Amino acid sequence: MDSLIVATPSKTEALERRYGAGALKEWQGPPASPWNETIALMLDHRSVRSYRPDPLPPGTLETLIAAAQSAATSSNMQWVSAVAITDPAKKKVLAEIAGNQKHIEQCPLYICWVADMSRNQRISDAEKTDFECMPWLESFMVACVDASLAAQNAVVAAESLGLGTVYIGAMRNDPIKVAELLGLPPQSFVVFGLCVGYADGKAKSEVKPRLPQSIVLHKERYDATKEAAIRATYDAEMSKFSARHELQAATWTQRVLNRLGPIKSMNGRETIRASLKKLGFELK
Amino acid sequence: MDSLIVATPSKTEALERRYGAGALKEWQGPPASPWNETIALMLDHRSVRSYRPDPLPPGTLETLIAAAQSAATSSNMQWVSAVAITDPAKKKVLAEIAGNQKHIEQCPLYICWVADMSRNQRISDAEKTDFECMPWLESFMVACVDASLAAQNAVVAAESLGLGTVYIGAMRNDPIKVAELLGLPPQSFVVFGLCVGYADGKAKSEVKPRLPQSIVLHKERYDATKEAAIRATYDAEMSKFSARHELQAATWTQRVLNRLGPIKSMNGRETIRASLKKLGFELK
Repeated sequence: MDSLIVATPSKTEALERRYGAGALKEWQGPPASPWNETIALMLDHRSVRSYRPDPLPPGTLETLIAAAQSAATSSNMQWVSAVAITDPAKKKVLAEIAGNQKHIEQCPLYICWVADMSRNQRISDAEKTDFECMPWLESFMVACVDASLAAQNAVVAAESLGLGTVYIGAMRNDPIKVAELLGLPPQSFVVFGLCVGYADGKAKSEVKPRLPQSIVLHKERYDATKEAAIRATYDAEMSKFSARHELQAATWTQRVLNRLGPIKSMNGRETIRASLKKLGFELK
Repeated sequence: MDSLIVATPSKTEALERRYGAGALKEWQGPPASPWNETIALMLDHRSVRSYRPDPLPPGTLETLIAAAQSAATSSNMQWVSAVAITDPAKKKVLAEIAGNQKHIEQCPLYICWVADMSRNQRISDAEKTDFECMPWLESFMVACVDASLAAQNAVVAAESLGLGTVYIGAMRNDPIKVAELLGLPPQSFVVFGLCVGYADGKAKSEVKPRLPQSIVLHKERYDATKEAAIRATYDAEMSKFSARHELQAATWTQRVLNRLGPIKSMNGRETIRASLKKLGFELK
Protein backbone atom coordinates (compact mmCIF):
# COMPACT_ATOMS: atom_id res chain seq x y z
CA MET A 1 0.00 0.00 0.00
CA ASP A 2 3.06 2.26 -0.19
CA SER A 3 1.71 3.90 -3.34
CA LEU A 4 -1.44 5.17 -1.63
CA ILE A 5 -1.46 8.92 -1.97
CA VAL A 6 -3.83 9.63 0.89
CA ALA A 7 -2.98 8.25 4.32
CA THR A 8 -5.53 5.68 5.42
CA PRO A 9 -7.85 7.03 8.10
CA SER A 10 -8.09 5.61 11.60
CA LYS A 11 -10.88 3.17 12.40
CA THR A 12 -13.03 5.79 14.12
CA GLU A 13 -12.50 8.29 11.29
CA ALA A 14 -13.29 5.62 8.70
CA LEU A 15 -16.50 4.56 10.43
CA GLU A 16 -17.56 8.19 10.93
CA ARG A 17 -17.09 8.92 7.25
CA ARG A 18 -18.91 5.76 6.17
CA TYR A 19 -21.90 6.04 8.50
CA GLY A 20 -21.83 9.76 9.22
CA ALA A 21 -20.75 11.30 12.51
CA GLY A 22 -24.36 11.39 13.72
CA ALA A 23 -25.32 7.93 12.55
CA LEU A 24 -22.23 6.35 14.08
CA LYS A 25 -24.27 6.06 17.26
CA GLU A 26 -26.08 3.31 15.35
CA TRP A 27 -22.85 1.34 14.92
CA GLN A 28 -23.34 -1.96 16.66
CA GLY A 29 -19.84 -3.33 16.46
CA PRO A 30 -17.79 -3.49 19.66
CA PRO A 31 -14.90 -1.04 19.95
CA ALA A 32 -12.50 -3.97 19.63
CA SER A 33 -13.82 -5.08 16.24
CA PRO A 34 -10.94 -6.15 13.98
CA TRP A 35 -9.26 -3.68 11.67
CA ASN A 36 -6.35 -3.47 9.25
CA GLU A 37 -5.07 -1.48 6.28
CA THR A 38 -7.01 -3.48 3.68
CA ILE A 39 -10.28 -2.90 5.53
CA ALA A 40 -9.41 0.79 5.99
CA LEU A 41 -8.84 1.00 2.24
CA MET A 42 -12.27 -0.47 1.46
CA LEU A 43 -14.09 1.76 3.93
CA ASP A 44 -12.41 4.77 2.33
CA HIS A 45 -13.95 4.03 -1.10
CA ARG A 46 -15.54 6.88 -2.98
CA SER A 47 -16.55 7.04 -6.64
CA VAL A 48 -14.30 9.29 -8.72
CA ARG A 49 -15.88 11.23 -11.60
CA SER A 50 -12.99 13.56 -12.49
CA TYR A 51 -9.62 12.26 -13.67
CA ARG A 52 -6.19 13.58 -14.49
CA PRO A 53 -4.99 12.51 -17.97
CA ASP A 54 -1.86 10.83 -16.53
CA PRO A 55 -1.27 7.34 -17.94
CA LEU A 56 -1.22 4.32 -15.63
CA PRO A 57 2.06 2.54 -14.76
CA PRO A 58 2.89 -0.30 -17.20
CA GLY A 59 1.18 -3.56 -16.25
CA THR A 60 -1.55 -1.93 -14.16
CA LEU A 61 -4.32 -3.34 -16.36
CA GLU A 62 -2.87 -6.86 -16.19
CA THR A 63 -2.56 -6.67 -12.40
CA LEU A 64 -6.18 -5.54 -12.08
CA ILE A 65 -7.33 -8.42 -14.29
CA ALA A 66 -5.28 -10.93 -12.29
CA ALA A 67 -7.03 -9.70 -9.14
CA ALA A 68 -10.39 -9.89 -10.94
CA GLN A 69 -9.81 -13.46 -12.11
CA SER A 70 -8.87 -14.43 -8.55
CA ALA A 71 -12.41 -13.78 -7.29
CA ALA A 72 -14.66 -16.79 -6.79
CA THR A 73 -16.56 -17.99 -9.86
CA SER A 74 -19.52 -20.34 -9.77
CA SER A 75 -18.41 -23.93 -10.56
CA ASN A 76 -15.24 -22.38 -12.06
CA MET A 77 -17.25 -21.61 -15.22
CA GLN A 78 -15.50 -18.20 -15.39
CA TRP A 79 -18.35 -16.40 -17.07
CA VAL A 80 -16.51 -13.10 -17.23
CA SER A 81 -14.42 -11.25 -19.78
CA ALA A 82 -13.04 -7.73 -19.78
CA VAL A 83 -12.62 -5.41 -22.73
CA ALA A 84 -10.11 -2.64 -21.98
CA ILE A 85 -10.71 0.60 -23.86
CA THR A 86 -8.09 3.32 -24.24
CA ASP A 87 -8.97 4.51 -27.77
CA PRO A 88 -10.35 8.08 -27.42
CA ALA A 89 -12.82 7.62 -30.28
CA LYS A 90 -14.34 4.51 -28.68
CA LYS A 91 -14.47 6.15 -25.26
CA LYS A 92 -16.29 9.12 -26.82
CA VAL A 93 -19.01 6.86 -28.22
CA LEU A 94 -19.32 5.00 -24.90
CA ALA A 95 -19.56 8.32 -23.03
CA GLU A 96 -22.40 9.37 -25.34
CA ILE A 97 -24.26 6.08 -24.77
CA ALA A 98 -23.90 6.73 -21.04
CA GLY A 99 -25.64 10.12 -21.33
CA ASN A 100 -22.46 12.14 -21.83
CA GLN A 101 -20.54 11.07 -18.76
CA LYS A 102 -17.34 12.98 -19.50
CA HIS A 103 -15.24 10.96 -17.02
CA ILE A 104 -15.41 8.03 -19.47
CA GLU A 105 -13.48 10.18 -21.93
CA GLN A 106 -11.19 11.61 -19.24
CA CYS A 107 -9.99 8.43 -17.58
CA PRO A 108 -6.92 6.77 -19.14
CA LEU A 109 -8.44 3.27 -18.84
CA TYR A 110 -12.05 2.21 -19.26
CA ILE A 111 -12.87 -1.45 -18.63
CA CYS A 112 -16.08 -3.00 -19.93
CA TRP A 113 -17.04 -6.00 -17.76
CA VAL A 114 -18.72 -8.70 -19.80
CA ALA A 115 -21.10 -11.40 -18.54
CA ASP A 116 -19.68 -13.85 -21.03
CA MET A 117 -21.43 -17.15 -21.74
CA SER A 118 -20.10 -17.13 -25.31
CA ARG A 119 -16.82 -18.81 -24.36
CA ASN A 120 -18.69 -21.80 -23.00
CA GLN A 121 -21.04 -21.77 -25.99
CA ARG A 122 -17.99 -22.13 -28.24
CA ILE A 123 -17.10 -25.29 -26.30
CA SER A 124 -20.63 -26.59 -26.91
CA ASP A 125 -20.20 -25.88 -30.62
CA ALA A 126 -16.70 -27.38 -30.85
CA GLU A 127 -17.64 -30.52 -28.94
CA LYS A 128 -21.00 -30.84 -30.73
CA THR A 129 -22.73 -31.18 -27.37
CA ASP A 130 -25.98 -29.41 -26.57
CA PHE A 131 -25.64 -27.35 -23.37
CA GLU A 132 -29.07 -27.66 -21.78
CA CYS A 133 -28.11 -25.32 -18.91
CA MET A 134 -27.42 -22.22 -21.01
CA PRO A 135 -30.73 -20.54 -21.90
CA TRP A 136 -31.99 -19.92 -18.35
CA LEU A 137 -32.37 -16.80 -16.24
CA GLU A 138 -30.43 -18.64 -13.51
CA SER A 139 -27.33 -19.04 -15.70
CA PHE A 140 -27.48 -15.43 -16.91
CA MET A 141 -27.76 -14.28 -13.29
CA VAL A 142 -24.68 -16.33 -12.35
CA ALA A 143 -22.77 -14.70 -15.20
CA CYS A 144 -23.74 -11.24 -13.89
CA VAL A 145 -22.65 -12.25 -10.36
CA ASP A 146 -19.34 -13.64 -11.69
CA ALA A 147 -18.67 -10.37 -13.53
CA SER A 148 -19.52 -8.35 -10.43
CA LEU A 149 -17.26 -10.30 -8.07
CA ALA A 150 -14.40 -10.01 -10.55
CA ALA A 151 -14.89 -6.27 -11.11
CA GLN A 152 -15.04 -5.55 -7.39
CA ASN A 153 -11.66 -7.23 -6.88
CA ALA A 154 -10.28 -5.02 -9.65
CA VAL A 155 -11.71 -1.97 -7.87
CA VAL A 156 -10.06 -2.89 -4.57
CA ALA A 157 -6.78 -3.57 -6.38
CA ALA A 158 -6.99 -0.22 -8.19
CA GLU A 159 -7.69 1.67 -4.98
CA SER A 160 -4.81 -0.13 -3.25
CA LEU A 161 -2.58 1.35 -5.98
CA GLY A 162 -3.84 4.87 -5.29
CA LEU A 163 -6.18 4.91 -8.31
CA GLY A 164 -9.79 6.06 -8.43
CA THR A 165 -12.70 4.25 -10.09
CA VAL A 166 -16.38 4.62 -10.84
CA TYR A 167 -18.79 1.99 -12.13
CA ILE A 168 -20.86 2.98 -15.19
CA GLY A 169 -24.21 1.17 -15.17
CA ALA A 170 -25.33 3.34 -18.10
CA MET A 171 -23.70 0.90 -20.53
CA ARG A 172 -27.12 -0.74 -20.20
CA ASN A 173 -28.78 2.31 -21.78
CA ASP A 174 -28.00 0.65 -25.13
CA PRO A 175 -26.49 -2.84 -24.65
CA ILE A 176 -26.77 -3.66 -28.35
CA LYS A 177 -24.79 -0.62 -29.50
CA VAL A 178 -22.13 -1.35 -26.85
CA ALA A 179 -21.92 -4.98 -28.01
CA GLU A 180 -21.53 -3.89 -31.62
CA LEU A 181 -18.83 -1.37 -30.77
CA LEU A 182 -16.85 -3.99 -28.84
CA GLY A 183 -17.44 -6.80 -31.34
CA LEU A 184 -19.06 -9.04 -28.73
CA PRO A 185 -20.26 -12.50 -29.82
CA PRO A 186 -23.81 -13.68 -29.02
CA GLN A 187 -24.42 -14.60 -25.37
CA SER A 188 -22.13 -11.91 -24.05
CA PHE A 189 -23.18 -8.58 -22.59
CA VAL A 190 -21.53 -5.59 -20.88
CA VAL A 191 -23.03 -5.50 -17.38
CA PHE A 192 -21.24 -2.24 -16.53
CA GLY A 193 -18.16 -0.22 -17.35
CA LEU A 194 -15.45 0.99 -14.97
CA CYS A 195 -13.39 4.16 -15.21
CA VAL A 196 -9.86 3.81 -13.81
CA GLY A 197 -7.37 6.63 -13.32
CA TYR A 198 -5.85 9.17 -10.96
CA ALA A 199 -8.46 11.34 -9.30
CA ASP A 200 -8.28 15.01 -10.17
CA GLY A 201 -7.31 16.48 -6.82
CA LYS A 202 -9.17 19.70 -7.57
CA ALA A 203 -12.51 17.90 -7.80
CA LYS A 204 -14.26 17.35 -4.51
CA SER A 205 -14.71 13.77 -3.48
CA GLU A 206 -16.01 12.55 -0.15
CA VAL A 207 -16.94 9.17 1.27
CA LYS A 208 -20.72 8.88 0.94
CA PRO A 209 -22.51 7.78 4.11
CA ARG A 210 -24.48 4.55 3.90
CA LEU A 211 -27.60 3.32 5.69
CA PRO A 212 -27.01 2.51 9.37
CA GLN A 213 -25.80 -1.03 9.72
CA SER A 214 -28.69 -1.82 12.05
CA ILE A 215 -31.19 -1.90 9.17
CA VAL A 216 -28.90 -3.63 6.66
CA LEU A 217 -27.54 -6.40 8.89
CA HIS A 218 -30.10 -8.83 10.32
CA LYS A 219 -29.32 -11.56 12.82
CA GLU A 220 -30.85 -14.99 12.27
CA ARG A 221 -34.03 -13.45 10.81
CA TYR A 222 -34.96 -10.37 8.75
CA ASP A 223 -36.42 -7.62 10.94
CA ALA A 224 -37.70 -4.31 9.57
CA THR A 225 -39.67 -3.22 12.64
CA LYS A 226 -37.32 -0.34 13.56
CA GLU A 227 -36.48 0.57 9.98
CA ALA A 228 -38.55 3.75 9.51
CA ALA A 229 -37.08 5.46 12.59
CA ILE A 230 -33.52 4.47 11.72
CA ARG A 231 -34.00 5.59 8.12
CA ALA A 232 -34.90 9.04 9.50
CA THR A 233 -31.45 9.31 11.11
CA TYR A 234 -29.90 8.44 7.73
CA ASP A 235 -32.06 11.04 6.01
CA ALA A 236 -30.69 13.63 8.42
CA GLU A 237 -27.12 12.49 7.70
CA MET A 238 -27.68 12.59 3.93
CA SER A 239 -29.24 16.08 4.20
CA LYS A 240 -25.94 17.33 5.60
CA PHE A 241 -24.04 15.49 2.85
CA SER A 242 -26.33 16.92 0.16
CA ALA A 243 -25.88 20.44 1.50
CA ARG A 244 -22.09 20.07 1.39
CA HIS A 245 -22.25 18.88 -2.22
CA GLU A 246 -25.13 21.00 -3.56
CA LEU A 247 -27.15 17.96 -4.51
CA GLN A 248 -30.78 18.45 -5.46
CA ALA A 249 -32.48 15.73 -3.41
CA ALA A 250 -31.81 16.47 0.24
CA THR A 251 -32.72 13.24 1.99
CA TRP A 252 -32.16 9.64 0.93
CA THR A 253 -35.90 9.06 1.01
CA GLN A 254 -36.40 11.91 -1.47
CA ARG A 255 -33.63 10.56 -3.66
CA VAL A 256 -35.26 7.12 -3.71
CA LEU A 257 -38.61 8.71 -4.60
CA ASN A 258 -37.01 10.59 -7.50
CA ARG A 259 -35.00 7.63 -8.75
CA LEU A 260 -37.63 4.88 -8.54
CA GLY A 261 -40.89 6.77 -8.95
CA PRO A 262 -41.05 7.90 -12.59
CA ILE A 263 -40.22 5.41 -15.35
CA LYS A 264 -38.23 8.06 -17.21
CA SER A 265 -35.39 7.78 -14.68
CA MET A 266 -34.63 4.33 -16.13
CA ASN A 267 -33.30 5.99 -19.32
CA GLY A 268 -34.89 3.29 -21.46
CA ARG A 269 -33.45 0.39 -19.50
CA GLU A 270 -36.91 -1.07 -18.99
CA THR A 271 -36.44 -2.54 -22.47
CA ILE A 272 -33.39 -4.59 -21.45
CA ARG A 273 -35.17 -7.94 -21.65
CA ALA A 274 -35.78 -7.41 -25.38
CA SER A 275 -32.18 -6.25 -25.89
CA LEU A 276 -30.82 -9.29 -24.07
CA LYS A 277 -32.92 -11.55 -26.26
CA LYS A 278 -31.36 -9.94 -29.35
CA LEU A 279 -27.93 -10.55 -27.78
CA GLY A 280 -28.69 -14.27 -27.53
CA PHE A 281 -29.90 -14.62 -23.95
CA GLU A 282 -33.17 -16.54 -23.76
CA LEU A 283 -33.64 -16.04 -19.99
CA LYS A 284 -36.18 -18.82 -19.71
CA MET B 1 -2.59 -7.62 7.60
CA ASP B 2 -0.73 -8.61 10.74
CA SER B 3 -3.33 -11.27 11.51
CA LEU B 4 -2.74 -13.18 8.27
CA ILE B 5 -1.69 -16.68 9.23
CA VAL B 6 -0.01 -17.57 5.97
CA ALA B 7 2.73 -15.29 4.68
CA THR B 8 1.68 -13.64 1.42
CA PRO B 9 3.46 -15.15 -1.57
CA SER B 10 5.78 -13.23 -3.83
CA LYS B 11 4.44 -11.82 -7.07
CA THR B 12 5.91 -14.60 -9.20
CA GLU B 13 4.64 -17.29 -6.81
CA ALA B 14 1.20 -15.69 -6.72
CA LEU B 15 0.94 -15.50 -10.51
CA GLU B 16 2.21 -19.07 -10.90
CA ARG B 17 -0.44 -20.35 -8.49
CA ARG B 18 -3.20 -18.34 -10.14
CA TYR B 19 -2.39 -19.15 -13.75
CA GLY B 20 -0.41 -22.38 -13.29
CA ALA B 21 3.32 -22.69 -13.70
CA GLY B 22 2.89 -23.80 -17.30
CA ALA B 23 0.28 -21.23 -18.25
CA LEU B 24 2.28 -18.39 -16.77
CA LYS B 25 4.03 -18.19 -20.14
CA GLU B 26 0.70 -16.71 -21.29
CA TRP B 27 0.99 -13.87 -18.77
CA GLN B 28 1.07 -10.67 -20.76
CA GLY B 29 1.86 -8.21 -18.03
CA PRO B 30 5.32 -6.66 -17.93
CA PRO B 31 7.63 -7.81 -15.11
CA ALA B 32 7.32 -4.36 -13.55
CA SER B 33 3.52 -4.53 -13.20
CA PRO B 34 2.45 -3.02 -9.87
CA TRP B 35 2.07 -5.17 -6.79
CA ASN B 36 1.32 -4.83 -3.09
CA GLU B 37 0.05 -6.80 -0.09
CA THR B 38 -3.65 -6.22 -0.85
CA ILE B 39 -3.23 -7.52 -4.39
CA ALA B 40 -1.18 -10.48 -3.12
CA LEU B 41 -4.02 -11.26 -0.73
CA MET B 42 -6.62 -11.29 -3.52
CA LEU B 43 -4.51 -13.45 -5.80
CA ASP B 44 -4.09 -15.93 -2.97
CA HIS B 45 -7.86 -16.53 -2.70
CA ARG B 46 -9.08 -20.09 -2.48
CA SER B 47 -12.52 -21.36 -1.48
CA VAL B 48 -12.55 -23.05 1.93
CA ARG B 49 -14.92 -25.99 2.46
CA SER B 50 -13.66 -27.26 5.80
CA TYR B 51 -13.72 -25.14 8.96
CA ARG B 52 -12.53 -25.30 12.54
CA PRO B 53 -15.31 -24.63 15.07
CA ASP B 54 -13.41 -21.69 16.61
CA PRO B 55 -15.56 -18.60 17.09
CA LEU B 56 -14.69 -15.34 15.34
CA PRO B 57 -13.24 -12.39 17.29
CA PRO B 58 -15.94 -10.01 18.60
CA GLY B 59 -17.01 -7.45 16.01
CA THR B 60 -15.82 -9.46 13.01
CA LEU B 61 -19.30 -9.62 11.49
CA GLU B 62 -19.82 -5.87 11.88
CA THR B 63 -16.43 -5.12 10.30
CA LEU B 64 -17.25 -7.37 7.32
CA ILE B 65 -20.60 -5.62 6.86
CA ALA B 66 -18.97 -2.17 7.05
CA ALA B 67 -16.61 -3.26 4.26
CA ALA B 68 -19.56 -4.65 2.31
CA GLN B 69 -21.57 -1.44 2.64
CA SER B 70 -18.55 0.52 1.43
CA ALA B 71 -18.72 -1.06 -2.03
CA ALA B 72 -20.27 1.00 -4.80
CA THR B 73 -24.06 0.76 -5.11
CA SER B 74 -26.04 1.89 -8.14
CA SER B 75 -27.52 5.39 -7.56
CA ASN B 76 -26.92 4.79 -3.82
CA MET B 77 -30.13 2.70 -3.77
CA GLN B 78 -28.35 0.17 -1.50
CA TRP B 79 -30.30 -2.84 -2.66
CA VAL B 80 -28.51 -5.23 -0.35
CA SER B 81 -29.14 -6.71 3.07
CA ALA B 82 -27.31 -9.43 4.96
CA VAL B 83 -28.79 -12.02 7.29
CA ALA B 84 -26.15 -13.49 9.59
CA ILE B 85 -26.83 -17.05 10.71
CA THR B 86 -25.10 -18.68 13.68
CA ASP B 87 -28.02 -20.81 14.94
CA PRO B 88 -27.01 -24.47 14.36
CA ALA B 89 -30.61 -25.54 13.63
CA LYS B 90 -31.01 -22.90 10.91
CA LYS B 91 -27.60 -23.73 9.42
CA LYS B 92 -28.59 -27.40 9.29
CA VAL B 93 -31.70 -26.60 7.23
CA LEU B 94 -29.70 -24.32 4.92
CA ALA B 95 -27.05 -27.04 4.48
CA GLU B 96 -29.79 -29.48 3.47
CA ILE B 97 -31.25 -27.02 0.94
CA ALA B 98 -27.75 -26.70 -0.49
CA GLY B 99 -27.50 -30.44 -1.10
CA ASN B 100 -25.89 -31.31 2.25
CA GLN B 101 -22.92 -28.99 2.11
CA LYS B 102 -21.53 -29.76 5.56
CA HIS B 103 -19.30 -26.65 5.65
CA ILE B 104 -22.46 -24.56 6.13
CA GLU B 105 -22.96 -26.35 9.44
CA GLN B 106 -19.25 -26.28 10.31
CA CYS B 107 -18.50 -22.61 9.84
CA PRO B 108 -19.12 -20.33 12.84
CA LEU B 109 -20.74 -17.62 10.67
CA TYR B 110 -22.96 -18.02 7.62
CA ILE B 111 -24.05 -14.84 5.85
CA CYS B 112 -27.03 -14.83 3.48
CA TRP B 113 -26.67 -12.00 0.96
CA VAL B 114 -30.02 -10.54 0.01
CA ALA B 115 -30.90 -8.67 -3.19
CA ASP B 116 -33.27 -6.45 -1.27
CA MET B 117 -35.75 -4.23 -3.07
CA SER B 118 -38.19 -4.51 -0.17
CA ARG B 119 -36.64 -1.62 1.77
CA ASN B 120 -37.33 0.72 -1.10
CA GLN B 121 -40.80 -0.77 -1.59
CA ARG B 122 -41.55 0.18 2.02
CA ILE B 123 -40.68 3.78 1.13
CA SER B 124 -43.10 3.58 -1.79
CA ASP B 125 -45.80 2.31 0.57
CA ALA B 126 -45.08 4.87 3.32
CA GLU B 127 -44.98 7.79 0.91
CA LYS B 128 -47.98 6.51 -1.09
CA THR B 129 -45.99 6.92 -4.30
CA ASP B 130 -46.02 4.33 -7.05
CA PHE B 131 -42.47 3.24 -7.92
CA GLU B 132 -42.65 2.65 -11.66
CA CYS B 133 -39.02 1.46 -11.81
CA MET B 134 -39.41 -1.56 -9.53
CA PRO B 135 -40.92 -4.45 -11.53
CA TRP B 136 -38.24 -4.70 -14.23
CA LEU B 137 -35.52 -7.25 -14.95
CA GLU B 138 -33.08 -4.31 -15.06
CA SER B 139 -33.80 -3.31 -11.46
CA PHE B 140 -33.59 -6.90 -10.22
CA MET B 141 -30.26 -7.30 -12.02
CA VAL B 142 -28.93 -4.14 -10.34
CA ALA B 143 -29.95 -5.55 -6.95
CA CYS B 144 -28.02 -8.76 -7.70
CA VAL B 145 -24.98 -6.72 -8.76
CA ASP B 146 -25.22 -4.57 -5.61
CA ALA B 147 -25.34 -7.69 -3.45
CA SER B 148 -22.36 -9.18 -5.28
CA LEU B 149 -20.14 -6.10 -4.98
CA ALA B 150 -20.93 -5.89 -1.28
CA ALA B 151 -20.29 -9.57 -0.63
CA GLN B 152 -16.97 -9.51 -2.46
CA ASN B 153 -15.74 -6.67 -0.24
CA ALA B 154 -16.72 -8.77 2.77
CA VAL B 155 -14.73 -11.69 1.32
CA VAL B 156 -11.61 -9.58 0.85
CA ALA B 157 -12.02 -8.18 4.38
CA ALA B 158 -12.43 -11.69 5.81
CA GLU B 159 -9.36 -12.98 4.02
CA SER B 160 -7.35 -9.95 5.18
CA LEU B 161 -8.20 -11.09 8.73
CA GLY B 162 -6.92 -14.60 8.07
CA LEU B 163 -10.39 -16.09 7.63
CA GLY B 164 -11.58 -18.44 4.89
CA THR B 165 -14.80 -18.18 2.91
CA VAL B 166 -16.83 -19.98 0.26
CA TYR B 167 -19.84 -18.70 -1.66
CA ILE B 168 -22.89 -20.96 -1.65
CA GLY B 169 -24.92 -20.52 -4.85
CA ALA B 170 -27.05 -23.50 -3.87
CA MET B 171 -29.29 -21.22 -1.80
CA ARG B 172 -31.00 -20.87 -5.18
CA ASN B 173 -31.94 -24.56 -5.15
CA ASP B 174 -35.00 -23.47 -3.15
CA PRO B 175 -35.21 -19.67 -2.87
CA ILE B 176 -38.72 -19.80 -1.41
CA LYS B 177 -37.79 -22.10 1.47
CA VAL B 178 -34.74 -19.94 2.22
CA ALA B 179 -36.91 -16.80 2.20
CA GLU B 180 -39.40 -18.42 4.58
CA LEU B 181 -36.66 -19.59 6.96
CA LEU B 182 -35.16 -16.08 7.10
CA GLY B 183 -38.50 -14.25 7.25
CA LEU B 184 -37.77 -12.24 4.12
CA PRO B 185 -40.40 -9.74 2.93
CA PRO B 186 -41.62 -9.77 -0.70
CA GLN B 187 -39.14 -8.38 -3.23
CA SER B 188 -36.13 -9.73 -1.41
CA PHE B 189 -34.15 -12.84 -2.31
CA VAL B 190 -30.98 -14.61 -1.16
CA VAL B 191 -28.63 -14.49 -4.16
CA PHE B 192 -26.03 -16.64 -2.40
CA GLY B 193 -24.72 -17.57 1.02
CA LEU B 194 -21.19 -17.21 2.36
CA CYS B 195 -19.41 -19.43 4.87
CA VAL B 196 -16.92 -17.56 7.07
CA GLY B 197 -14.47 -19.14 9.51
CA TYR B 198 -10.97 -20.43 10.14
CA ALA B 199 -9.88 -22.98 7.56
CA ASP B 200 -9.26 -26.44 8.92
CA GLY B 201 -5.52 -26.74 8.36
CA LYS B 202 -5.79 -30.48 7.84
CA ALA B 203 -8.00 -30.06 4.78
CA LYS B 204 -6.12 -29.50 1.56
CA SER B 205 -6.73 -26.17 -0.10
CA GLU B 206 -4.90 -24.84 -3.11
CA VAL B 207 -5.28 -21.79 -5.32
CA LYS B 208 -7.23 -22.91 -8.39
CA PRO B 209 -5.70 -21.88 -11.70
CA ARG B 210 -7.84 -19.68 -13.93
CA LEU B 211 -8.05 -19.29 -17.70
CA PRO B 212 -5.00 -17.57 -19.21
CA GLN B 213 -5.46 -13.85 -19.12
CA SER B 214 -4.98 -13.66 -22.88
CA ILE B 215 -8.46 -15.06 -23.56
CA VAL B 216 -10.22 -13.22 -20.74
CA LEU B 217 -8.77 -9.75 -21.31
CA HIS B 218 -9.48 -8.13 -24.68
CA LYS B 219 -8.03 -4.84 -25.84
CA GLU B 220 -10.33 -2.36 -27.59
CA ARG B 221 -12.33 -5.21 -29.19
CA TYR B 222 -13.36 -8.78 -28.29
CA ASP B 223 -11.13 -11.33 -30.04
CA ALA B 224 -11.65 -15.10 -29.73
CA THR B 225 -9.50 -16.14 -32.70
CA LYS B 226 -6.74 -17.75 -30.59
CA GLU B 227 -9.06 -19.02 -27.89
CA ALA B 228 -9.19 -22.74 -28.73
CA ALA B 229 -5.40 -23.13 -28.68
CA ILE B 230 -5.01 -21.16 -25.46
CA ARG B 231 -7.84 -23.11 -23.82
CA ALA B 232 -5.83 -26.28 -24.55
CA THR B 233 -2.96 -24.97 -22.40
CA TYR B 234 -5.47 -24.34 -19.60
CA ASP B 235 -6.89 -27.83 -20.00
CA ALA B 236 -3.36 -29.19 -19.50
CA GLU B 237 -2.93 -27.06 -16.38
CA MET B 238 -6.28 -28.14 -14.95
CA SER B 239 -5.46 -31.80 -15.65
CA LYS B 240 -2.48 -31.49 -13.32
CA PHE B 241 -4.65 -29.71 -10.73
CA SER B 242 -7.35 -32.39 -11.01
CA ALA B 243 -4.79 -35.16 -10.55
CA ARG B 244 -3.45 -33.49 -7.39
CA HIS B 245 -6.98 -33.22 -5.96
CA GLU B 246 -8.52 -36.46 -7.26
CA LEU B 247 -11.26 -34.62 -9.13
CA GLN B 248 -13.36 -36.55 -11.61
CA ALA B 249 -13.31 -34.25 -14.63
CA ALA B 250 -9.70 -33.91 -15.74
CA THR B 251 -9.75 -30.92 -18.06
CA TRP B 252 -11.69 -27.67 -17.81
CA THR B 253 -13.36 -28.44 -21.12
CA GLN B 254 -14.64 -31.74 -19.68
CA ARG B 255 -15.82 -29.99 -16.55
CA VAL B 256 -17.73 -27.44 -18.62
CA LEU B 257 -19.32 -30.26 -20.65
CA ASN B 258 -20.42 -32.03 -17.45
CA ARG B 259 -21.69 -28.86 -15.77
CA LEU B 260 -23.56 -27.25 -18.67
CA GLY B 261 -24.60 -30.22 -20.79
CA PRO B 262 -27.32 -32.06 -18.87
CA ILE B 263 -30.17 -30.07 -17.31
CA LYS B 264 -29.97 -32.19 -14.14
CA SER B 265 -26.78 -30.39 -13.09
CA MET B 266 -28.91 -27.29 -12.46
CA ASN B 267 -30.43 -28.99 -9.39
CA GLY B 268 -33.84 -27.55 -10.23
CA ARG B 269 -32.63 -23.98 -10.59
CA GLU B 270 -34.14 -23.78 -14.08
CA THR B 271 -37.39 -22.98 -12.24
CA ILE B 272 -36.01 -19.84 -10.63
CA ARG B 273 -38.08 -17.45 -12.73
CA ALA B 274 -41.28 -18.93 -11.26
CA SER B 275 -39.81 -18.83 -7.74
CA LEU B 276 -38.80 -15.20 -8.14
CA LYS B 277 -42.31 -14.32 -9.29
CA LYS B 278 -43.68 -15.89 -6.10
CA LEU B 279 -41.17 -13.80 -4.12
CA GLY B 280 -42.58 -10.63 -5.66
CA PHE B 281 -40.21 -9.99 -8.55
CA GLU B 282 -42.09 -9.36 -11.79
CA LEU B 283 -38.93 -9.18 -13.97
CA LYS B 284 -40.73 -7.50 -16.84
